[in-house]
Amino acid sequence: MFNIGIIGATGYTGSELVRILFNHPDVSIKIITSESHKGKKFSEIHPQFKGIVDHDLKSAKEINPAKLDIIFLALPHGISMRFIRDLIKEDIKIIDLSGDFRLSNKAVYEEWYKTEHTFPEGFEQAVFGISELYEDKIKDAKLVANPGCFPTGAILALAPLVSKNLIDKKKIIIDSKTGVTGAGINPKSVTHFPNVNENFMPYGIKTHRHTIEIQEQLSKIGNDGVTIQFTPHLLPVDRGILTSSYTTPLKGIREEELKTIFKDFYTDSAFIRIIEDVPELKNVRATNFVDIYPAYDIRTNNILVFSAIDNLVKGAAGQAVQNMNIMLNLKQESGLYQVPIRP
Amino acid sequence: MFNIGIIGATGYTGSELVRILFNHPDVSIKIITSESHKGKKFSEIHPQFKGIVDHDLKSAKEINPAKLDIIFLALPHGISMRFIRDLIKEDIKIIDLSGDFRLSNKAVYEEWYKTEHTFPEGFEQAVFGISELYEDKIKDAKLVANPGCFPTGAILALAPLVSKNLIDKKKIIIDSKTGVTGAGINPKSVTHFPNVNENFMPYGIKTHRHTIEIQEQLSKIGNDGVTIQFTPHLLPVDRGILTSSYTTPLKGIREEELKTIFKDFYTDSAFIRIIEDVPELKNVRATNFVDIYPAYDIRTNNILVFSAIDNLVKGAAGQAVQNMNIMLNLKQESGLYQVPIRP
Amino acid sequence: MFNIGIIGATGYTGSELVRILFNHPDVSIKIITSESHKGKKFSEIHPQFKGIVDHDLKSAKEINPAKLDIIFLALPHGISMRFIRDLIKEDIKIIDLSGDFRLSNKAVYEEWYKTEHTFPEGFEQAVFGISELYEDKIKDAKLVANPGCFPTGAILALAPLVSKNLIDKKKIIIDSKTGVTGAGINPKSVTHFPNVNENFMPYGIKTHRHTIEIQEQLSKIGNDGVTIQFTPHLLPVDRGILTSSYTTPLKGIREEELKTIFKDFYTDSAFIRIIEDVPELKNVRATNFVDIYPAYDIRTNNILVFSAIDNLVKGAAGQAVQNMNIMLNLKQESGLYQVPIRP
Amino acid sequence: MFNIGIIGATGYTGSELVRILFNHPDVSIKIITSESHKGKKFSEIHPQFKGIVDHDLKSAKEINPAKLDIIFLALPHGISMRFIRDLIKEDIKIIDLSGDFRLSNKAVYEEWYKTEHTFPEGFEQAVFGISELYEDKIKDAKLVANPGCFPTGAILALAPLVSKNLIDKKKIIIDSKTGVTGAGINPKSVTHFPNVNENFMPYGIKTHRHTIEIQEQLSKIGNDGVTIQFTPHLLPVDRGILTSSYTTPLKGIREEELKTIFKDFYTDSAFIRIIEDVPELKNVRATNFVDIYPAYDIRTNNILVFSAIDNLVKGAAGQAVQNMNIMLNLKQESGLYQVPIRP
Repeated sequence: MFNIGIIGATGYTGSELVRILFNHPDVSIKIITSESHKGKKFSEIHPQFKGIVDHDLKSAKEINPAKLDIIFLALPHGISMRFIRDLIKEDIKIIDLSGDFRLSNKAVYEEWYKTEHTFPEGFEQAVFGISELYEDKIKDAKLVANPGCFPTGAILALAPLVSKNLIDKKKIIIDSKTGVTGAGINPKSVTHFPNVNENFMPYGIKTHRHTIEIQEQLSKIGNDGVTIQFTPHLLPVDRGILTSSYTTPLKGIREEELKTIFKDFYTDSAFIRIIEDVPELKNVRATNFVDIYPAYDIRTNNILVFSAIDNLVKGAAGQAVQNMNIMLNLKQESGLYQVPIRP
Repeated sequence: MFNIGIIGATGYTGSELVRILFNHPDVSIKIITSESHKGKKFSEIHPQFKGIVDHDLKSAKEINPAKLDIIFLALPHGISMRFIRDLIKEDIKIIDLSGDFRLSNKAVYEEWYKTEHTFPEGFEQAVFGISELYEDKIKDAKLVANPGCFPTGAILALAPLVSKNLIDKKKIIIDSKTGVTGAGINPKSVTHFPNVNENFMPYGIKTHRHTIEIQEQLSKIGNDGVTIQFTPHLLPVDRGILTSSYTTPLKGIREEELKTIFKDFYTDSAFIRIIEDVPELKNVRATNFVDIYPAYDIRTNNILVFSAIDNLVKGAAGQAVQNMNIMLNLKQESGLYQVPIRP
Repeated sequence: MFNIGIIGATGYTGSELVRILFNHPDVSIKIITSESHKGKKFSEIHPQFKGIVDHDLKSAKEINPAKLDIIFLALPHGISMRFIRDLIKEDIKIIDLSGDFRLSNKAVYEEWYKTEHTFPEGFEQAVFGISELYEDKIKDAKLVANPGCFPTGAILALAPLVSKNLIDKKKIIIDSKTGVTGAGINPKSVTHFPNVNENFMPYGIKTHRHTIEIQEQLSKIGNDGVTIQFTPHLLPVDRGILTSSYTTPLKGIREEELKTIFKDFYTDSAFIRIIEDVPELKNVRATNFVDIYPAYDIRTNNILVFSAIDNLVKGAAGQAVQNMNIMLNLKQESGLYQVPIRP
Repeated sequence: MFNIGIIGATGYTGSELVRILFNHPDVSIKIITSESHKGKKFSEIHPQFKGIVDHDLKSAKEINPAKLDIIFLALPHGISMRFIRDLIKEDIKIIDLSGDFRLSNKAVYEEWYKTEHTFPEGFEQAVFGISELYEDKIKDAKLVANPGCFPTGAILALAPLVSKNLIDKKKIIIDSKTGVTGAGINPKSVTHFPNVNENFMPYGIKTHRHTIEIQEQLSKIGNDGVTIQFTPHLLPVDRGILTSSYTTPLKGIREEELKTIFKDFYTDSAFIRIIEDVPELKNVRATNFVDIYPAYDIRTNNILVFSAIDNLVKGAAGQAVQNMNIMLNLKQESGLYQVPIRP
């Protein structure tokens, strides 16, 4: 039994971490912290846990790293780096779910996040935590920068094409659609029910922070500068990201060939399903699965790849637990192999 | 490890049974049948199971009762009774999720279901499977008639009041609101997205079949003839039933007293939570929990009781598994103690 | 052409007033005010109006009552009374959409609204604006207190029964379900999309302010003290209120008789439809219609009445315009006779 | 007053036609037909019309073209051509809302529709009815082929770029998202509420019929062969299409320049709004407006254009009425200039 701490459990990522870890057979949640709600019960903030997880929320100051094997940080960017600057000195493995250590360096971070990075030393130590692509590095990591939700769906959809140099890397179009939980637990105008329900819109055009995260990772995978156009849209659903990507192959390809490339690339990946029909959000809901559907249109000579994930699970807490499993030498599926909630 | 069979797995109840039993630590699904889809894979009918549960669907004729400990029937009413007439001769325990054996006798059944009952002998053997109220009988039952979804939420909300003779039994108003999955997996006009979405309506006024199921059970619990007015409404959500019930106390009562009565009544029930705030569908979603909130309005001298369940879990497949656990002498929570999916 | 002013146009009620009045053939919107947004365009606050209604928002100080025939106040309760104290001295007719003058007196108001009433003189002058019941008084009113959304649906459903003394007035159960716009335009936790979507819950149990508004009006209509139990619930839809009410007849009644009573009672009411099937929110959406369905259950001896309205139209802005039409001696339907938006 | 007939009024397009024409000041609906429901009232099929439009449904055989000025056909493709073959001989103008005469010829039609075209002579007479682009031809047309819903949103978004030869015409990506009413009024598995709600998916990848309609029209506008990649997706909303399109400019362009090009192109178009912020479905709901937002990303050298329409109004019935207005020499806005329904 490994001992786990969770810093910052009042958001959706925090509550999903607790949901998943509560039934994980190999770990035990020892402490959950919240500075704003300390003293309250976890189930007062997240009433669905009443009678199930009633832990008292603590201050992060009460954490004793010596008694924990792994600590998760489910904090906003900008805040997370402050905690990590201190925790990194301790003998404990860290999984950071914020965006603070996902990019390559301070300059890029500050350009896209428009805020100062106060612990740039962390960039060197951080391993980008796409479990399927970097298992070896994650295994030995001190600090895992858990990927963003959009990057998870987009990178996994495009990695086989980019890594095998099959497409024009300067012309990748990524059109993503996300559920509302991606916007966090705090009410704002954009998440006000009458503004989302029966509505749909793009947002963050040209400037969304996940653009650079996807682009840097695909460039790394492709050993070459990749340029992507990334546009997120807001769906009137709670959970899920569907990504539609459009690329041009460098030379003709048959669709069957394409499917084989994807199946081979992910042959050992328990959560990735290369499917025979279009992906749907509900077929991955509340689970760590990634459904990917590659297609080739001979009429236009375009390769299309569609992927579906649950933004809170594979896009956040689930992948964090998958990374934890890797770091603790457990089976990747441990505690994570659930059936999607459909309907 | 107990061996399980499921007859009729193409509806929502069937797929929920498989979802729950797949991760149950003490049982193994040996056979899943479907007459209309035999030969196909289960995951072709329910694509969320792809790569997880890919069992071939069999004909019910291929069932060998000698190799199974328990069999679930997830069939429409009228069909289920035909299978049970044969299965009941075998040495196997049966949990029937249809409405065929929930009522007291053939005459009542035929009045409310408007169809002939061809195996009335079954009524004697059937135990009504509200797990919290009839654990002792369920333990030894050959045939459990798993309760309807509305009756589960309504009976559990009112049982403490009726059993302790606290209310006027002739004037019980039950106003229930259900998610769309209660209408089944087959598309029809009433479940066509544009007819449900942004809409809300009552249905089955005065005549819904669950009326008599609730009334018979409450009469039994109250040792007296109970009269209920039951009105279901259709919510634009997938899952969940919220029941609002209105009754008149026979004598004045303080709200605290009322809460204590409910807490005491359900003190040993792992899935029933007497809560301090109003129930919400999402706090029980995809789980077997029942959230109950009793209130007394001194201004009007009415007792109000609200309950929330997931219609597919506690209202169908989850309670069936809970009954299975009782019949197999397992812990009631075994395989069922999940955190609600919220958001 | 009559000249109209609207004070407080940044909420949903304000934007609906403008939507309806924009196409009204007999009136012209002269001024729209907002203290918090003055100087901005109306369409900056409500972008659906871009290119259609681009009026500059003014301060209420710029209103010249001498140039207006009618003024609408779409302000929060507590604020509205302050404006009315001044406006009532002017030669102008006022329609107040807040709750400030709907109740009988200061004491009742302060008990239910938990705030001081600073202009109690207004209660005498105010006419309660249920257009179908009080046309004669509205015609000559100086100040119309436009009814609340729940009261509109509930009072119209029950008025025929109460006025004709057909039911036990001490035992009226009113179970209402409303869309989210009833909670206003400002984001809060309870209206955060993931808290409403796929969810359903009661709220304001025993204490909702509309309780007393309904009860006072029904008492007046019935010439007798009425006691109601009123429980609102929050639906995951934008618009609409469905009300299910349960009452006991003083003597037996046939359902046909009941329907005739309702049809006769509302025979001259252009917007009230006594329908032959259950009401649905979508059949009245974005219109001023009220669909009412009365039923009698001989098994239980209960009368059930269901009604559906659009909370922003008949429940607020539409009824306000209907009242305006009456006050200006126009046809009640003028500018209001639209086809419901379905699907 | 012009006299109007509507053939085939049982679908959504038919009911929207009636909704819009009911309040149109210059026309009168003389006959509504339905072969499957003749004898019933229109409001029995579409209950929202009860008491408003209660016309008896007739057989199309009862139509007397001599008494009508314009006839609308709201029929499925394949059926519509049969009626038009006969009607075209009469002295009456025809607006066909099916796909039967939108393409250039029989061969193309049969390739994409996979069904025989039995009245190819109609192609010559048909004018493609994008009101903003072909007003002159529509004015004198005998037969207008009213555009498809996706083509309307996509063509209007791209016409300025293509007509002015600003972009690479061989690499146009069109990613569209539609509400469920696009799938029609008949229930099927794909429109079953639990399959749409909380879900999202692409469909018709590579093969959707609107692909060729968009491509042919853009080729015509661009005087050159255009190649488009078109992918529709299904949104869990009733109404609306949001289209996100991605193109490459032939030479650098500033965003301000781009906006000016769009504003100039549509300067006389009453329903097209070139907006300053991203388009949202709800800002055009239940109206004929088209909101268009062009953007240029200097980082990637891509032009992005987003458009929002209501699929049943500007994408079908509204544009049909706009075309009728043109054909009858009325103001284009007549009967169509409504405020969007938001919230």
